[in-house]
Amino acid sequence: MAQTARILVINPNASARVTQVIDSELMSLRATCPFSLDVLQNIDGPPGIALQADVDQVAPQVLGIISKEKADAYVIACFSDPGLMASRERFPDAVIVGSGEAAILEALTRGDRFGIISLSDASSLRQRRMVRMMGLTERYAGSQGIEATAEQSTSPELFEKMVSAGSALAQSGANVIAMGCAGMAHFRPMLQDRLGLPVIDPTGAALAVAIGRCMVRRGRPDAHPG
Amino acid sequence: MAQTARILVINPNASARVTQVIDSELMSLRATCPFSLDVLQNIDGPPGIALQADVDQVAPQVLGIISKEKADAYVIACFSDPGLMASRERFPDAVIVGSGEAAILEALTRGDRFGIISLSDASSLRQRRMVRMMGLTERYAGSQGIEATAEQSTSPELFEKMVSAGSALAQSGANVIAMGCAGMAHFRPMLQDRLGLPVIDPTGAALAVAIGRCMVRRGRPDAHPG
Amino acid sequence: MAQTARILVINPNASARVTQVIDSELMSLRATCPFSLDVLQNIDGPPGIALQADVDQVAPQVLGIISKEKADAYVIACFSDPGLMASRERFPDAVIVGSGEAAILEALTRGDRFGIISLSDASSLRQRRMVRMMGLTERYAGSQGIEATAEQSTSPELFEKMVSAGSALAQSGANVIAMGCAGMAHFRPMLQDRLGLPVIDPTGAALAVAIGRCMVRRGRPDAHPG
Amino acid sequence: MAQTARILVINPNASARVTQVIDSELMSLRATCPFSLDVLQNIDGPPGIALQADVDQVAPQVLGIISKEKADAYVIACFSDPGLMASRERFPDAVIVGSGEAAILEALTRGDRFGIISLSDASSLRQRRMVRMMGLTERYAGSQGIEATAEQSTSPELFEKMVSAGSALAQSGANVIAMGCAGMAHFRPMLQDRLGLPVIDPTGAALAVAIGRCMVRRGRPDAHPG
Amino acid sequence: MAQTARILVINPNASARVTQVIDSELMSLRATCPFSLDVLQNIDGPPGIALQADVDQVAPQVLGIISKEKADAYVIACFSDPGLMASRERFPDAVIVGSGEAAILEALTRGDRFGIISLSDASSLRQRRMVRMMGLTERYAGSQGIEATAEQSTSPELFEKMVSAGSALAQSGANVIAMGCAGMAHFRPMLQDRLGLPVIDPTGAALAVAIGRCMVRRGRPDAHPG
Amino acid sequence: MAQTARILVINPNASARVTQVIDSELMSLRATCPFSLDVLQNIDGPPGIALQADVDQVAPQVLGIISKEKADAYVIACFSDPGLMASRERFPDAVIVGSGEAAILEALTRGDRFGIISLSDASSLRQRRMVRMMGLTERYAGSQGIEATAEQSTSPELFEKMVSAGSALAQSGANVIAMGCAGMAHFRPMLQDRLGLPVIDPTGAALAVAIGRCMVRRGRPDAHPG
Repeated sequence: MAQTARILVINPNASARVTQVIDSELMSLRATCPFSLDVLQNIDGPPGIALQADVDQVAPQVLGIISKEKADAYVIACFSDPGLMASRERFPDAVIVGSGEAAILEALTRGDRFGIISLSDASSLRQRRMVRMMGLTERYAGSQGIEATAEQSTSPELFEKMVSAGSALAQSGANVIAMGCAGMAHFRPMLQDRLGLPVIDPTGAALAVAIGRCMVRRGRPDAHPG
Repeated sequence: MAQTARILVINPNASARVTQVIDSELMSLRATCPFSLDVLQNIDGPPGIALQADVDQVAPQVLGIISKEKADAYVIACFSDPGLMASRERFPDAVIVGSGEAAILEALTRGDRFGIISLSDASSLRQRRMVRMMGLTERYAGSQGIEATAEQSTSPELFEKMVSAGSALAQSGANVIAMGCAGMAHFRPMLQDRLGLPVIDPTGAALAVAIGRCMVRRGRPDAHPG
Repeated sequence: MAQTARILVINPNASARVTQVIDSELMSLRATCPFSLDVLQNIDGPPGIALQADVDQVAPQVLGIISKEKADAYVIACFSDPGLMASRERFPDAVIVGSGEAAILEALTRGDRFGIISLSDASSLRQRRMVRMMGLTERYAGSQGIEATAEQSTSPELFEKMVSAGSALAQSGANVIAMGCAGMAHFRPMLQDRLGLPVIDPTGAALAVAIGRCMVRRGRPDAHPG
Repeated sequence: MAQTARILVINPNASARVTQVIDSELMSLRATCPFSLDVLQNIDGPPGIALQADVDQVAPQVLGIISKEKADAYVIACFSDPGLMASRERFPDAVIVGSGEAAILEALTRGDRFGIISLSDASSLRQRRMVRMMGLTERYAGSQGIEATAEQSTSPELFEKMVSAGSALAQSGANVIAMGCAGMAHFRPMLQDRLGLPVIDPTGAALAVAIGRCMVRRGRPDAHPG
Repeated sequence: MAQTARILVINPNASARVTQVIDSELMSLRATCPFSLDVLQNIDGPPGIALQADVDQVAPQVLGIISKEKADAYVIACFSDPGLMASRERFPDAVIVGSGEAAILEALTRGDRFGIISLSDASSLRQRRMVRMMGLTERYAGSQGIEATAEQSTSPELFEKMVSAGSALAQSGANVIAMGCAGMAHFRPMLQDRLGLPVIDPTGAALAVAIGRCMVRRGRPDAHPG
Repeated sequence: MAQTARILVINPNASARVTQVIDSELMSLRATCPFSLDVLQNIDGPPGIALQADVDQVAPQVLGIISKEKADAYVIACFSDPGLMASRERFPDAVIVGSGEAAILEALTRGDRFGIISLSDASSLRQRRMVRMMGLTERYAGSQGIEATAEQSTSPELFEKMVSAGSALAQSGANVIAMGCAGMAHFRPMLQDRLGLPVIDPTGAALAVAIGRCMVRRGRPDAHPG
């Protein structure tokens, strides 16, 4: 085999703080993973993806980045997966991983019904539309907002709000929790301890998919995608 | 990090031919993957998992193997995922991957509706129950049997039957195909070419999940499972 | 008509206490019903069906019993219906009744949404998977555990827990309640009075199906099954 | 026990021919069943239930009959189950069995997806609404009309049309067939032979439910309904 | 174009008070709308549509009225839409609008999940069946009864009960509320203010559909229905 | 009442031909409708909305137009409803009508299952996602592409392709057809005649909603939106 595979993690928003949370996750992963793991901030993006208008604005930008950047796999590090469908439509053979989608699909394997801790009520509604679009409502316990922005999502004060949101979701039947923002990643172990339920970080879930698929693709004697 | 991670692939049936197909897939993967990849045949199993009675017989055996063998991740290399739920219930922190489940979840990311090429009509019915149990009917185009056994599934004559089954599934709306038996793996690239649609091998899909999750777990500074 | 029809009730667990609850139900029924009503305890079974592993262990044993015992109808007297699908697959013309399935289908005719009082949270999750597999989620209000074993399910102290569970289910929208264990049968009339909602005992529901179908089959001039 | 139980079968239409088909079914059943089995024709009804307007016209009449006639169980012998919901609402403790509902629920236990042979396209649409109302679409393969009336449904020429309709339904995935009219009952054994699939007669299915539930209710030491 | 279009609003119950609430809604609308807007009370109807038996009784009467009265569009001004399916079946080219259906479909465009304030628990159950029949359960948060009759629904004391019901529905996830009775129309603006959510009056929703479709039909150069 | 209401129809693509088709529909409608009916072409848009990337590109532009233009109701005249969710989120009190959504909801009132004639396979997949997102899969028979662009959709040669697509949809169970592009409007009456099924033009459906809601809002004594 020739070159080291490259996995490109795209942060669709322009929050340096969120990018930093993602990067520190990659940092420790680099010790184990034989692939090159890069993160790229969408410099034209808004500070956070709060509204449907933000998703709509950012979607063509993500497609633009994927069109320009060469990589063996792409991770869209925003729970709303902006640009995911358009990118897959244009590059059907590429490995393009939405972190919202990845978190939800991993959740299906780690519990019966999943709940999502979202940044706000607007995000909760968007997530519900997303889950319906995926055809997964039967496994969805709901979303619970913590009324914060992506930037704030890295702030320590938010932890107790996340515990409350997670408990409310458990009350509604969730036995696995997905965190609805890339910026929440560092809270994962603590939150899992407090809730006593598996907690999934979307970027981690997406990286697992990207790494696993790259590995299997490269390990195949034939050159076929998939 | 201490030791090399071990991923254990369990073939629930006792067909040496199927085990061999799985093993040759692992062989080429070992060149790329830094983990130890072992395959284990369920010597008490039937020659193939054709009927619900076979799944029922094999389920406690798979749980028994997972209980005895130490590994960082387990792959149950049979589309019916025998013993998956019981194993996860007993070992909630372990990474236990069902290859049917993994193939189906990967399919959700590579097409809109998936179809499954199954060994027989009995398997088709079982798969439909499985898809309903997973809550995924909205994304399911159906299963199509080729009237073969797991042993025969490795036979070259079956290829044309698989092409017919895949075309019928495409006719029913599938735009991604999962192969419903571990023994079909070597047909994947050819079948993908003929059908012009992504074709997923369940063992490959499951290995991607197992490798990806092990990598991310090991790459985490904290020792938390998940 | 020749011989008296025989209906065989199989208790998949090895709890003599549960078998006794079932038997006392049959006792009073024998006065009215012209069929022979036998009960058989699965002596190889665990004391109760609490986990998926128990269902998996017991399923082949139930199939074994049905394969050996001759009867006009079989009732599997455990809400999880172990071995039901495999038995029907092997004996497509036989009348094989799962008591979980029968209770759920009767519930559909006696209320709009049903709730299930289950022995434990593990059973609740299993029941949800079962309801999804049956394709009936739209009519399902949920399951509520009382944290008991099948043996204990006959104990009088449990009654108040069942009332609480039933009330919680009503709160969630259930207007008919199924009891999730054969051992709870004797509580049915009292529970119905307290909750003010129809309460269904799974063995009773299954017996009604078995008796009714045997009667209609025998009353047909032609010898056709069905 | 005091009196013989009475099961009243109501033919909602005023077709003597259909009533006769029902009656001859009861005739042979009377030899086995210890209950009194009566049939009653709705003399105010239309000759057949072809359109929604017929169902609407007949519904209050069926409720009227059930209000006036004393019985231990009522069978509404029309697949559209006219008056079923209103009757259950008024007499919550009575055993009131819709033959469409009973056929569909029995079908769920004898196959994976059911198809219905209907009298006409208008009936097919009505059945689809009914199946959706029951929340059972995931198990429904569809309805297929034979363009006949309830009166004609007893005519021998229709048999071949029923075979074609049944085959079309099997093609669409049905592996169990319900006949969508009480007047088709006598074709059941022949049709089952030709199609090689279980065929369910709605009146037979409803009688099984009515007889079974009456038996179990009467066999209970307590006087509780249910 | 020749004549002024006529829209006929049918009140299926015989409550003069409800008819009056409808009429005062039409009154103000007449100033803007170029169509003739008539209301007609079903003099043979019950004072209110409380039970399924009321719906069943009234359905043929509504069909009778539509068969006799000439209009460009018909509005059935009762949330249960009695006679709607039968009328559309008989007059496939006519514009026949059910106000329950219209309110629910408008709700789908003004929120993600809708809740219904119903007159009673019996109505709530009927609405749930209706929503299932429409295939819309994924968007339905539930119904909440206020234990009143259609006549009382115009009484000012009921307003606080409606506020409580609406709040409970919001708690269950509804972000748009439909009022489940024509007689509640005058409460709409106040209720919307109190709940802070869009509130839909079924007659208003149905009138919007009837007026809009008549306008578009008449504005078409061709004479085609639709 | 003060001023004439203004309904603004936005053509999200930059095809003058499609805008012309829309405009000629408005032309004849202006004779009947007392409102001002304007059409506006999105000059920054692509020539047609063929791919998800086109929808993504156009969505923020539609939001921009709605933010700048003052109107009593907005119609987004593209079946994919670009910008609909973001616009409603920003302007919750405005009447914003998606023509895809409007066509689908009208279809629910004019048949049991609807089919959509789409421009291409990519559009068919997008429509399926849209229908799932709306939670309406139970009423959806599918989409059928005619492999054309929005510009070509006005060309007479396409008519026969539309007839074939419509027939295929009818074969799949559709009994009402929605045309999946604004540019197809002029084919509606002919297509309806040929197929013998109701055919819905999305712009017409959306105009009916916009006109109807404006009329009812203006006809209300109170000034409340809704």
